[in-house]
Amino acid sequence: MDPAYLQRFLSDSARTQTRNEIRELLKLISRADIISLAGGLPSPDAFPIDELKRIIPDTLERYGTSALQYGATEGDVGLRQELLKLMAAQEGGRFREIGIDNILITSASQQALDLCSRVFISTHDAVVCGLPSYLGALGAFTACGAKLSGVLLDDSGMRTDLLEQRLVDLRRRGVRPKMLYVVPDFQNPAGVSLSLERRRELLQIAHEFDLLVIEDSPYRDLRYVGRNPPSLFDLDRDGRVISMFTFSKILFPGLRLGWVVADEEVISRLAVAKQPVDLCTSGLSQVVAREYLKTGGLGSQIARIRKLYSVKREVMLRALDDAMKPEWGVRWTRPEGGLFLWMVLPSWMKSRELFARALEAKIAFVNGDSFHCDGTGDNTLRLNFSFPEPDELRTAAARLAGVIGDMVAEHGESRAAEAPSSEPSPAVLVSGDHSLEQLGWNLALHEVQE
Amino acid sequence: MDPAYLQRFLSDSARTQTRNEIRELLKLISRADIISLAGGLPSPDAFPIDELKRIIPDTLERYGTSALQYGATEGDVGLRQELLKLMAAQEGGRFREIGIDNILITSASQQALDLCSRVFISTHDAVVCGLPSYLGALGAFTACGAKLSGVLLDDSGMRTDLLEQRLVDLRRRGVRPKMLYVVPDFQNPAGVSLSLERRRELLQIAHEFDLLVIEDSPYRDLRYVGRNPPSLFDLDRDGRVISMFTFSKILFPGLRLGWVVADEEVISRLAVAKQPVDLCTSGLSQVVAREYLKTGGLGSQIARIRKLYSVKREVMLRALDDAMKPEWGVRWTRPEGGLFLWMVLPSWMKSRELFARALEAKIAFVNGDSFHCDGTGDNTLRLNFSFPEPDELRTAAARLAGVIGDMVAEHGESRAAEAPSSEPSPAVLVSGDHSLEQLGWNLALHEVQE
Repeated sequence: MDPAYLQRFLSDSARTQTRNEIRELLKLISRADIISLAGGLPSPDAFPIDELKRIIPDTLERYGTSALQYGATEGDVGLRQELLKLMAAQEGGRFREIGIDNILITSASQQALDLCSRVFISTHDAVVCGLPSYLGALGAFTACGAKLSGVLLDDSGMRTDLLEQRLVDLRRRGVRPKMLYVVPDFQNPAGVSLSLERRRELLQIAHEFDLLVIEDSPYRDLRYVGRNPPSLFDLDRDGRVISMFTFSKILFPGLRLGWVVADEEVISRLAVAKQPVDLCTSGLSQVVAREYLKTGGLGSQIARIRKLYSVKREVMLRALDDAMKPEWGVRWTRPEGGLFLWMVLPSWMKSRELFARALEAKIAFVNGDSFHCDGTGDNTLRLNFSFPEPDELRTAAARLAGVIGDMVAEHGESRAAEAPSSEPSPAVLVSGDHSLEQLGWNLALHEVQE
Repeated sequence: MDPAYLQRFLSDSARTQTRNEIRELLKLISRADIISLAGGLPSPDAFPIDELKRIIPDTLERYGTSALQYGATEGDVGLRQELLKLMAAQEGGRFREIGIDNILITSASQQALDLCSRVFISTHDAVVCGLPSYLGALGAFTACGAKLSGVLLDDSGMRTDLLEQRLVDLRRRGVRPKMLYVVPDFQNPAGVSLSLERRRELLQIAHEFDLLVIEDSPYRDLRYVGRNPPSLFDLDRDGRVISMFTFSKILFPGLRLGWVVADEEVISRLAVAKQPVDLCTSGLSQVVAREYLKTGGLGSQIARIRKLYSVKREVMLRALDDAMKPEWGVRWTRPEGGLFLWMVLPSWMKSRELFARALEAKIAFVNGDSFHCDGTGDNTLRLNFSFPEPDELRTAAARLAGVIGDMVAEHGESRAAEAPSSEPSPAVLVSGDHSLEQLGWNLALHEVQE
């Protein structure tokens, strides 16, 4: 069919919808000879394949007729009970006080984001998110017609001073956002976490401006350094926080299984919205997860993953420290957990140009502007360190440094040719004298020391 | 949280969305002592549990790292290739000419309906569907703001004369529907199939009025009597038919796995819409289905289900024939396949009143008005015969007949008391003089004589 012909049938939403750049990218770079730091993939070494081989046949034998049947839209009761126990033990606090009506099982966090979008966002509703933010969340919000308003992050997560200022500005213009989206722990893509103080401030602001808060929490269990502050859900006293969790990073993504914890009225609304979307989440996945949780093996599984990724994170940071010359003016975050680190290039260097050249050098990453709802961030990029092997991380860091070094050198030559005397040399321009803020990416992401 | 408080945060769509009545009903009647003819559940006897116990561990061993990882939004390539082979063999015709870009894997048909809604329906867009129609489809369409226009069915499926007339009327009023929704084979809920002649007429009308056609085909393989006419997709020459298939009824629903076959431009649009919805469908489900298909066991699995349900259908029809008195004026369809039959009560008898009394007699069904987008059909009901055991079907038919008989008797008494001489007796009013043919089947559904 001629695409132009099909155009007339499209919904308003479909007309403006674009492909998720990362997912398209992942297809492109699945060539074996490219080292990809682009995906958000867990390491297959972390998959509990042997445990599954043991659990699944027995589960089918005992629970096959219910596991394979249609189930309740809200999710398997037994699985929800196991999750309540798990969260009470791991998180304590408010997680000890919730019940089965506070949990909805979803087909992983992406569905939770989609359901929240459908339930809370009408066309042109404003949603506040981080600069940068997880691309899949932005995609879910905009598919429902949201207008996004981005607030900068720094090393302690979303800048609450700027958040408040933004909300005041919006209110002055008659705009009342309904929702604030945050990934408080090891944010995708920036790798930073909200400090406890910021969490409190953020909730206070949400209270004052009457915002629902989406706490997207896929990486919370994957901390390699330090200790987690309480979750937003735990700190919230208004019932306005909607927390999303997933098995994707702690068990495996192919399960497509996550859960939402929220006020029971919110859960009820999400369940109603889920009915026409998929009737119910896979019974097979749910019963496998339930029986896996019953074995009590999740704790050691998470410990295993932490160890695996902690090593990779160390390798990655050390390799970057070794390969990148300070005078290039390249900065990156040093995340305490999660799957990603964030790199800020000197402002003249465009990550899309870098990407094209990196691909020639057989490495890939994701351009940071994809994560910016306002089109900024063209000198930023996201690097994944959970999927590649340590050797690949070292090679990738060296190759990336090689390409960046070439670009710095060329930039120096062209500037020298253009304006030989009137401007300082590029080496000075991008030297450590300039805080990242001056370089244009703002924040401590922007203010990270060399 | 106070529901009234939450109200202010809701999207336009969520404000008007109501709970899926059937799914709510199923929760209510899951009490063990009620015989439920309400669900659309396959029989657990049809689940290939032993095969799965054999296949899954081996599949995890060989393909674990890919099965458990994130996958392409479009679906596993190997699974799509197996489905191409399957459809070429089973259906032939145009299904031999399509390629991998004509298939999208979905989290069962319900997601396919949701994706089509998102891609093609903006608020107030008109969608034409049957009277009655599958409730889950109506829910998916209205969640995106569709205005539904219902066209009556008869024993040969949707009445194409009325369809054309409706489209002319709508056009006169400036309304141009984008989409026509049909379940051509053993329709849910009515159990009827579109005749070959009607299929051709329907496509001709779709061509003239430039409509996309959704062919929802979950039951096509479950024919117990006669032979299938070609599918709409096979007969279509314009590329306007979007066909949806699912493993739910031929393998098991807990897999949550289906596939859409359509023009590749349509598939591409659906895939873009799927990205923010769930990133990808479960790899575990997909690889299990793929390896199951490779065993070549699906043919005998389907044969087994056909045999099982064919017996149940016979039992159900015979039990109704035995239990229902012709003079009550109750009619029901005699489906050649699928999971459901449709019952039409005399017009004075309301299925919701019957339902309340049936529940006391410990049987349940679904009220037919739920399937009518225009609020009609209050004297109709849907009966499932795939899930209950044959003995339960017999008991249910007897109990249902008992309740109906009581209502007929009471109605006769009250009419006799009201107008003792001026009207004919109920026994005459509802006598068997009128065959379904004489009544027209649309009449049988909607204008049934007493």
